[in-house]
Amino acid sequence: MSEVLELKPGVEIKEAIFQINEEIEKLKFGENPVELYDPIHYFMKLGGKRSRPLLALMSYSLFKEDYKSIMLPAIGLEIFHNFTLIHDDIMDKAPLRRGKETVHQKWNDNIAILSGDVMMIKVYDFFLGVEDPSKISRVISRFNRTAVEVCEGQQKDMNFESLPTVSETEYLEMIRQKTAVLIGYALELGGILSDADEDSIHYLRQFGEDIGTGFQLMDDLLDVYADQSKFGKQVGGDIIENKKTFLLINALNKANPAQREELDKWIAAKDFDKDEKVKAVVEIYNLLGIKELTERKMNEYFDRSFDSLSKISASDEAKEPLLRFAKYLISRDK
Amino acid sequence: MSEVLELKPGVEIKEAIFQINEEIEKLKFGENPVELYDPIHYFMKLGGKRSRPLLALMSYSLFKEDYKSIMLPAIGLEIFHNFTLIHDDIMDKAPLRRGKETVHQKWNDNIAILSGDVMMIKVYDFFLGVEDPSKISRVISRFNRTAVEVCEGQQKDMNFESLPTVSETEYLEMIRQKTAVLIGYALELGGILSDADEDSIHYLRQFGEDIGTGFQLMDDLLDVYADQSKFGKQVGGDIIENKKTFLLINALNKANPAQREELDKWIAAKDFDKDEKVKAVVEIYNLLGIKELTERKMNEYFDRSFDSLSKISASDEAKEPLLRFAKYLISRDK
Repeated sequence: MSEVLELKPGVEIKEAIFQINEEIEKLKFGENPVELYDPIHYFMKLGGKRSRPLLALMSYSLFKEDYKSIMLPAIGLEIFHNFTLIHDDIMDKAPLRRGKETVHQKWNDNIAILSGDVMMIKVYDFFLGVEDPSKISRVISRFNRTAVEVCEGQQKDMNFESLPTVSETEYLEMIRQKTAVLIGYALELGGILSDADEDSIHYLRQFGEDIGTGFQLMDDLLDVYADQSKFGKQVGGDIIENKKTFLLINALNKANPAQREELDKWIAAKDFDKDEKVKAVVEIYNLLGIKELTERKMNEYFDRSFDSLSKISASDEAKEPLLRFAKYLISRDK
Repeated sequence: MSEVLELKPGVEIKEAIFQINEEIEKLKFGENPVELYDPIHYFMKLGGKRSRPLLALMSYSLFKEDYKSIMLPAIGLEIFHNFTLIHDDIMDKAPLRRGKETVHQKWNDNIAILSGDVMMIKVYDFFLGVEDPSKISRVISRFNRTAVEVCEGQQKDMNFESLPTVSETEYLEMIRQKTAVLIGYALELGGILSDADEDSIHYLRQFGEDIGTGFQLMDDLLDVYADQSKFGKQVGGDIIENKKTFLLINALNKANPAQREELDKWIAAKDFDKDEKVKAVVEIYNLLGIKELTERKMNEYFDRSFDSLSKISASDEAKEPLLRFAKYLISRDK
């Protein structure tokens, strides 16, 4: 895509990402013992879209000019996000993250647990960097509620793996907690720090949560229906791994007895041809209209998020960058 | 021992422990998913001496009356301590804690990681319970420095296991970080919250760190020289497990070539009679005067801690309970 995305009118988003990465490059978490600090520096520099700090800066920029003044708490969000990835990777026994070895793979589980713990502690140092001390308590208290929900979402996600069925409502609540609440908090943080009115803070968070949930549904959808030539991962990967996505959950809940038997057979299969499994499961998805169902639900979230954005009391001009960035994030063609 | 210990003049320590436990019993960390919250409630109620919150209340009581007003941050210390135990138990593959199953043993590693993470987050909610909001930033900032040191100490402890030798200095720094700094912070917290002067806050922390380090040396000593009829664990347990204690480190560093060979033989032995190993190693300890050496170092720490206590600007009468409690903690005959 060729359009130039902006953080706020007159500041390109790539300039802000550069600034965020520059700050992250400079971070010195500690030195000794190296077993504790090397993994932290390694992981923080693996890259990533930095969307959480970015969204905090964008949200702040709706109401105030000097977005660099909230760089510390914004980077706290990125540290927290990376902490959750390190611990989640242990739990999921994932060997790779962003194409590189995960911390527990490169070092070991104990080091991954402990370096994650240190990152979690350090997050609060960054929140103490909030310039107006009277806001620290609110910032941390709201963050804590969010962080605990992220853990709850991760536990539910693990629970779902061993459950025979999961309801759509349970699934949506899980992805809201595991993924969306932190996006919501990033925007809420920008609102709190820019002295936005309470209603706008509320809608900023709501905008973020709904975009985040819709974004996860899009992820589920793309895994199955993406154009392989444009998709970074193997199309059908979730199907091969029996991942309980929005699509599979709905297919299991809507299948007739014959279709259910077919799905159960593929889920139970230990030795199978991957392409054959993907083809068979997608055929059932298509018969059940799972793609359209998922698109409908996803668009409900996106519509509601744009509705929340419209209720935030900043000018349309000020909101334009956030709107365009959100549309960019949810476009399939990026 | 029959003497009545006091929290402060007129308040028995057992009364304060009762109040702390009452608060802990009431804690509701959350409910859903149960896999996340059952382990937290289980572990927090396993017991323990509650010495960290207790020391914070005692320290506060040197300068102010209403110790109950700092119950929330004091309990935050206990939650943090329990979080470290849950994560350490995973790393050490320990099956038991306080005679009961550890969290990773009763549930699994993933649940132990994640429920520990939630506890770590919740600690900060308790610090936000500090009554004077202007103190929150200092309380959290000093806590963070402490908490990171606890992690550094744990990592060093793990590193030591696979090192051939460790210096006395490195060992003392490891136990200071892993154990003593949190005791120091508990006392510092009481000082900060009671508006103690800066010198007294400094000496409160120093008192705690030195008592904590001395206490750990006493632990090392008792493992070898305790009276088995009064000792809760197996005498010689550290020797059997080749644990790099202050005693073993000094023995390795002071042994003559023949003694060193003998020690190395026992350390390398896979199949041995436990009593025989303990007897042989203790014999070397005795030849090298390791007991006296350890006692001397331990008493250095205790002496310095009492010296710090004497510099705290509260009346001797006010300090009497803390002095007696410290002496009780370090007495071998409790």
